[in-house]
Amino acid sequence: MKKIAVFMLSFFALISSYAQENTFPEGTKPASSNIAGAQYPRIDNERKAYFRIEAPAADSISVSLGNVALTKDAKGVWTGVTKPLDPGFHYYTLKINGVNVNDPFSETFYGASRVMSGIEVPEDGVDFYEIKNVPHGKIESHWYLAESTGETRLAYVYTPPGYDNNSTERYPVLYLQHGMGEDRRAWANQGRTNFILDNLIAEGKAKPMIIVMEDGGIAQAFNSPKRPQDKNFWDGFEDIMIKDLIPNIDANYRTLRHPKHRAIAGLSLGGTQTYQISQANLDTFSGIGIFSAPFGFPGVETGYNGLLTKPDEFAKKVDVFYVSMGSKEGARAGRGTHEALEKASIKHVYYEAPGTAHEFQTWRKSLHGFAQLLFQD
Amino acid sequence: MKKIAVFMLSFFALISSYAQENTFPEGTKPASSNIAGAQYPRIDNERKAYFRIEAPAADSISVSLGNVALTKDAKGVWTGVTKPLDPGFHYYTLKINGVNVNDPFSETFYGASRVMSGIEVPEDGVDFYEIKNVPHGKIESHWYLAESTGETRLAYVYTPPGYDNNSTERYPVLYLQHGMGEDRRAWANQGRTNFILDNLIAEGKAKPMIIVMEDGGIAQAFNSPKRPQDKNFWDGFEDIMIKDLIPNIDANYRTLRHPKHRAIAGLSLGGTQTYQISQANLDTFSGIGIFSAPFGFPGVETGYNGLLTKPDEFAKKVDVFYVSMGSKEGARAGRGTHEALEKASIKHVYYEAPGTAHEFQTWRKSLHGFAQLLFQD
Repeated sequence: MKKIAVFMLSFFALISSYAQENTFPEGTKPASSNIAGAQYPRIDNERKAYFRIEAPAADSISVSLGNVALTKDAKGVWTGVTKPLDPGFHYYTLKINGVNVNDPFSETFYGASRVMSGIEVPEDGVDFYEIKNVPHGKIESHWYLAESTGETRLAYVYTPPGYDNNSTERYPVLYLQHGMGEDRRAWANQGRTNFILDNLIAEGKAKPMIIVMEDGGIAQAFNSPKRPQDKNFWDGFEDIMIKDLIPNIDANYRTLRHPKHRAIAGLSLGGTQTYQISQANLDTFSGIGIFSAPFGFPGVETGYNGLLTKPDEFAKKVDVFYVSMGSKEGARAGRGTHEALEKASIKHVYYEAPGTAHEFQTWRKSLHGFAQLLFQD
Repeated sequence: MKKIAVFMLSFFALISSYAQENTFPEGTKPASSNIAGAQYPRIDNERKAYFRIEAPAADSISVSLGNVALTKDAKGVWTGVTKPLDPGFHYYTLKINGVNVNDPFSETFYGASRVMSGIEVPEDGVDFYEIKNVPHGKIESHWYLAESTGETRLAYVYTPPGYDNNSTERYPVLYLQHGMGEDRRAWANQGRTNFILDNLIAEGKAKPMIIVMEDGGIAQAFNSPKRPQDKNFWDGFEDIMIKDLIPNIDANYRTLRHPKHRAIAGLSLGGTQTYQISQANLDTFSGIGIFSAPFGFPGVETGYNGLLTKPDEFAKKVDVFYVSMGSKEGARAGRGTHEALEKASIKHVYYEAPGTAHEFQTWRKSLHGFAQLLFQD
């Protein structure tokens, strides 16, 4: 007990040093991504983030959001302000004497093959991913035995509002993949998948659907000698999805078991996986979403078993082909693909998120758009 | 894209420095609580933990597990080994140049009013909380409107294996509370509640039950000027549980809605809350579990509306009264209460977890014991 008490006390002292400062920069508010009660980091109306860290013995502290060096006052308190940040969610770290670490006052999020701090920057007039007073679906941890590998695996499954109360209705399913260095937690946490769908369903803008989020095997990609360009950058995920995950979800959830009612989408390298899995399995999926994927477009000539040269046949198989990127990304992440598809007269939808980069605000908006198009037949 | 690429590259470099060291201290394995692929921290057969961090520009690094100072070699790599640790889960932090931060290579866990690193130390012959090849229940995020406060709140709800496939069976419910500085995530993550119950149910040792984990309002306690001894240390949680949470769970899950089929338990300050809520609501709960709670025992004379002076009447109301602590804790955390109850001839079960302190191994074992006693009528 005594050891615990001392240990706890030291944190109390650390955290209370925040509470002692009662005046804050004008017009700033704590980021919603802070741990409960933490006053910093704060964000102002221009989307600049303010940091404050008490660390008398540190020689240098910087914040990865624009690589801002904090400055130290006579009392050993480090402060600094970023440039205006893009709206939405940003992973970040602090560098303290050269070591990349999390901000003790931020919630943490799995990204870039490690647990990182994250900061939520509000976007004026945009609230489609906020929690509202509408019926809420659930995200549940679904543990299942993957027969093909013998391992017990975890999927996060969103079930829409009313799923539990209505024991006969069946639902379409979207399989939704994270990016490189992330795992199944990405769409569930920083992606806000459940709130995006809850809100769309409440407004009647999306069909109630089940969304399955699994681990695409690229969670530790930054720690791997393989690169995305390499063949077999990830191992076996297509098999897991087609042979294990989909049959298991169909057996354990009230799904509509027909390709018309099944879609797949992914962000970044999860978009690359989506290309790979969807073109090999057009008898499984009829909705395809590619969000900010610079790698993997199979090319009009050879892609999708040659169907990209036959627009009518492709359109018969694929109800929704959705390509998106953030306007601050290079064309290769989406616009290039869109132009190639346009030229080949392939029916598709292209979306460019205004003013955001290769980050979750782009992908939240992509999911928001894509979900409204799905399962309309 | 370019900014992201540079940003990602720097992490790749950081993490790959681990991968480059191919020889590890003999008999050590990476901790299961590490992020995917991280080789450190490692644990040996004597339960000592080995740390290795590359940080040429740092002047001091220590690990809170026994306050072990790491030492720096000529290449700027810091290493160190702890004394043998108690088995189970331990929160910890690194102190880098005086700043308490998380270990970049550990998963994070909410505790002590902040996000912390955690290390899982195996216990010989103990696997009741490991994931096994048995039917698995789910933990789901249940968002609900708490009418009494007007806020949308989140409960984590464990449903046992088979809950979804059997649409008529009703289940008893355990309300399970975390400790000071933790929140609803504690039992779901570091507590391993779902695996403990999955395994017990598979062995036929516990009745299938629903377990509800909410936020007791003490998540930011370390950041509060109030102390546990103060009245109203937390505000309104009893009201939320009795007026909002229980009716909502009864309305949305297939529960058995009778005090015989409802229990409450908590660890540390959650045990204090359990005392408070259970004694004021003996018409709501018939099972009570107090794990490592040094505060809040109401005393034999006045507690539970005087029923602790009337053992027969108390036993009629309360089917299971379970008190526990770790053998390394002070008597006040449980043994003292047990002795007082014994003296008063109050029927109860006392358990002391061997060789552990005020930590999750004690509470996992407490839940494991308590759950087997519940709902046996």
